[in-house]
Amino acid sequence: MQTVPLIQVGLGGVGRAVVERVLAAADEFEWRYGLRLHYVALLDSRGAIVAPEGLTYGDLQRALAAKSAGQSLATMAEGYRHEGAADIVDVAGTTGAIVIDVTASDDSVDALLLALERGYAAVTANKRPLTQDYATFRRLVGCGRFRYEATVGAGVPVIASLAENIIASHDTVHRIEGCFSGTLGFLTTGLQAGGSFSSLVREARVRGYTEPDPRDDLGGMDVGRKALILARTLGWPLDMAQVQVESLFPPALAAGSVDDFLQATGTLDADYQSRVAGARAQGQTLRYVASLAGGSAQVGLQPVPLDSPLGRLQGTDNLIAFYTDIYQTSPLVLQGRGAGANGTAAGVLADIVALARRQR
Amino acid sequence: MQTVPLIQVGLGGVGRAVVERVLAAADEFEWRYGLRLHYVALLDSRGAIVAPEGLTYGDLQRALAAKSAGQSLATMAEGYRHEGAADIVDVAGTTGAIVIDVTASDDSVDALLLALERGYAAVTANKRPLTQDYATFRRLVGCGRFRYEATVGAGVPVIASLAENIIASHDTVHRIEGCFSGTLGFLTTGLQAGGSFSSLVREARVRGYTEPDPRDDLGGMDVGRKALILARTLGWPLDMAQVQVESLFPPALAAGSVDDFLQATGTLDADYQSRVAGARAQGQTLRYVASLAGGSAQVGLQPVPLDSPLGRLQGTDNLIAFYTDIYQTSPLVLQGRGAGANGTAAGVLADIVALARRQR
Repeated sequence: MQTVPLIQVGLGGVGRAVVERVLAAADEFEWRYGLRLHYVALLDSRGAIVAPEGLTYGDLQRALAAKSAGQSLATMAEGYRHEGAADIVDVAGTTGAIVIDVTASDDSVDALLLALERGYAAVTANKRPLTQDYATFRRLVGCGRFRYEATVGAGVPVIASLAENIIASHDTVHRIEGCFSGTLGFLTTGLQAGGSFSSLVREARVRGYTEPDPRDDLGGMDVGRKALILARTLGWPLDMAQVQVESLFPPALAAGSVDDFLQATGTLDADYQSRVAGARAQGQTLRYVASLAGGSAQVGLQPVPLDSPLGRLQGTDNLIAFYTDIYQTSPLVLQGRGAGANGTAAGVLADIVALARRQR
Repeated sequence: MQTVPLIQVGLGGVGRAVVERVLAAADEFEWRYGLRLHYVALLDSRGAIVAPEGLTYGDLQRALAAKSAGQSLATMAEGYRHEGAADIVDVAGTTGAIVIDVTASDDSVDALLLALERGYAAVTANKRPLTQDYATFRRLVGCGRFRYEATVGAGVPVIASLAENIIASHDTVHRIEGCFSGTLGFLTTGLQAGGSFSSLVREARVRGYTEPDPRDDLGGMDVGRKALILARTLGWPLDMAQVQVESLFPPALAAGSVDDFLQATGTLDADYQSRVAGARAQGQTLRYVASLAGGSAQVGLQPVPLDSPLGRLQGTDNLIAFYTDIYQTSPLVLQGRGAGANGTAAGVLADIVALARRQR
């Protein structure tokens, strides 16, 4: 039996789902893989609990309960405040540890780099450490002990298929096209069905598909980050500023409250309606597409043929199409739910298992 | 630099594509993975060439040329006859070797088991060793040094997605549906478009989509084997006899020459035409589907909704849909070219890289 110490940074929705999934998988992973996963440290933004011999089931449940009650781990009896996740990695680290970053913060990069330096492995569901400067990306992924499946398409095995199937089979990627936002998928299929932009944005927000401020989705930066991660995985040395990102609202609407914004979206309805009609006249429909080709990446609203993988995509599913030497006329396509705490946690767990099995 | 000795059994179309792909990838894999793949033995059905220090580029090219000229490796200057692939594994094996089975024979199972017993790794594109008794399947896959991506969907990462994403993330599979035959995909989309069964079978044969005797495809056993491999990967202890396989021709047409068969297919046209019309009346279309659910597996012609992943599938592409706890209403779908020597060789190469990197 191989014991795998886990250090998890982040206890939001995804972080909670990862802890719960690790606990649920414990028995199965022992017989299936000979792996015993145990937490040695759990961190939120300010606090931590640490137990080098392993946090107990009770410790973990009390930590989740504290978070549900809106408290930081720092307030727990055994908890304390930390000055940065790297400090905790320093304290808690043991041979073969895996550091799990399920924050949405730029700050976790120090903890990840320290972990890799010490010879630990690391997993992230957080796009930010991968979308800083290119040198940082290389430092993270170059060591072969770092995985990031959940950063693109949540649990859909986008990164594994690209890195461990296409690239590892000496195939050549000519072009990638994908839809990586459930929110914008809902919006574009709604536009296609005749809905107005303003009412669809409101509906997406009510359904919980958007961030509290829907501009965080409509601005396209989240999709842009995913495109950058794919480009860098292909070995393209791009920076975030080189990814063209089309926002679905004009700069004038960036300021002001959410209510102001929702009010103002009505002024965009006619324009979107005419773009949809223009596409339809060509046998096309609009999708918010990430496109990678010829060393450059862009994301934005694009007309795509109705009879194409992206055109047939409906609703909130994510989809990626790889056009390669082997998949030339008909691409390799992956499709599935690309968001949600459970799917994201599943991607994280698959990465943990892959790293633990490779460490043997 | 990690040197990985390769022992390849089989030099047909896929075998040749694997050798060529390994040679083409050599430089890239050195810088990308620190892996130096080199062949120590190459086998066809009767002959072999062996060089424990590594066959040279010239050796490999001369072997491919001999095969192109219709000769066995046994006729080469340095070649000799073998009495079974296991003998060669015995002679050629060295620490960290990977045995590659690209035959279509039941016989290679001895070589694979011997390789695993010796601590080597093994890769197969051959469904037969995996579809013998369940105990043999367990012996092969149980050691964790055996991969078989190319057996289902060629290079499409079906097995990796199931084993290393879905199962390794503690997700639960409720149902799998897939189309795993390009030939039968061509046939069923042709039927949907109004073609007759007999003319579509002829056309598929002329285009090279079928085996020389199209009954080898139309009988469904090849798809049945893939369904069995998926079922066993899920941990279902099924045997081939327990997989229900619907043949697309009646037993009466099993005897006789290929020409006799092609002649006789005309008698089936009316029946297929009425099945297609019956499906259409329900908003459905026919596909040759492998279905796994509740511990059992079946393959056969099924009506599927036009507006479903399988119903939308056109032409020769393969498709698999996984319905799981995480992908409940909308499945995780993979689609792509599931046949051809290059795609199959790509699946084999990805497996080789995965095994070599895990052996470190």
